[in-house]
Amino acid sequence: MRAEQIVEEFPVVAATSNALEAGRLMAERRLPGLVVTDTDGKPLTILPASQVVRLLVPTYVQDDPSLAGVLNESMADRIADAIGDKPVSAILPKPLPTMAKVKADDNIVEVAAVMAHEHAPLVAVVDKGRLIGVITASRLLEVALNTT
Amino acid sequence: MRAEQIVEEFPVVAATSNALEAGRLMAERRLPGLVVTDTDGKPLTILPASQVVRLLVPTYVQDDPSLAGVLNESMADRIADAIGDKPVSAILPKPLPTMAKVKADDNIVEVAAVMAHEHAPLVAVVDKGRLIGVITASRLLEVALNTT
Repeated sequence: MRAEQIVEEFPVVAATSNALEAGRLMAERRLPGLVVTDTDGKPLTILPASQVVRLLVPTYVQDDPSLAGVLNESMADRIADAIGDKPVSAILPKPLPTMAKVKADDNIVEVAAVMAHEHAPLVAVVDKGRLIGVITASRLLEVALNTT
Repeated sequence: MRAEQIVEEFPVVAATSNALEAGRLMAERRLPGLVVTDTDGKPLTILPASQVVRLLVPTYVQDDPSLAGVLNESMADRIADAIGDKPVSAILPKPLPTMAKVKADDNIVEVAAVMAHEHAPLVAVVDKGRLIGVITASRLLEVALNTT
């Protein structure tokens, strides 16, 4: 089997789109991350959900984590209200982590080698610069271990 | 809301259990990882699916990734056959990465602060050394952004 035969669909967001909307999408579909594309639709990087979670942490708590314990529960519950409009591009890690990529015709071991080497929970499958889909580690295990 | 109110169930494997079985569990339930416990049931670490994927990569490919491309497709598809019996403990990264943990009565911002600081896709919720469950980044976003 080749990478293109086992790809999964994976929601994509543009770097210019709203970061909170990206967070809502991850929450609704229980995704560990999203593929971020540039204005031409070319895959740029993966936005991990933990990076959106960072938006929920006020700067004074980032500076002194013990202050989070001082917030009472209802204050903590309303923390998302304080977040303004931020584009996805503003919350990407800098420098931009390279996204693990494989070619459409790579075999399973090639995909596994990239994933293992990059400690990547998912790799982008790219054909001529175009994103075809992604392969998550659990999907690769499903195929390789014949659990279906 | 407190951590214990938003925990999710999360499959747990013992460090002594079979690594391939752990891989199958991740594949079947499409999990990005599992919590690994010691013989007393105390949470030790997270086993990421990408670490099990590493088992699929023969040593000669790990040493020279270009060799993966030489395998023909049917050879690559049967790669899992070559994997013997290995316990989970044998494939854990060394040194053991510390698992991100929060307390049962931590508020949402405290959970977010730990997750953001550790770049963790999930944190273990622990009460008196006992694992109550985990909170994934997408679950925390769901709660904080009120998407339900």
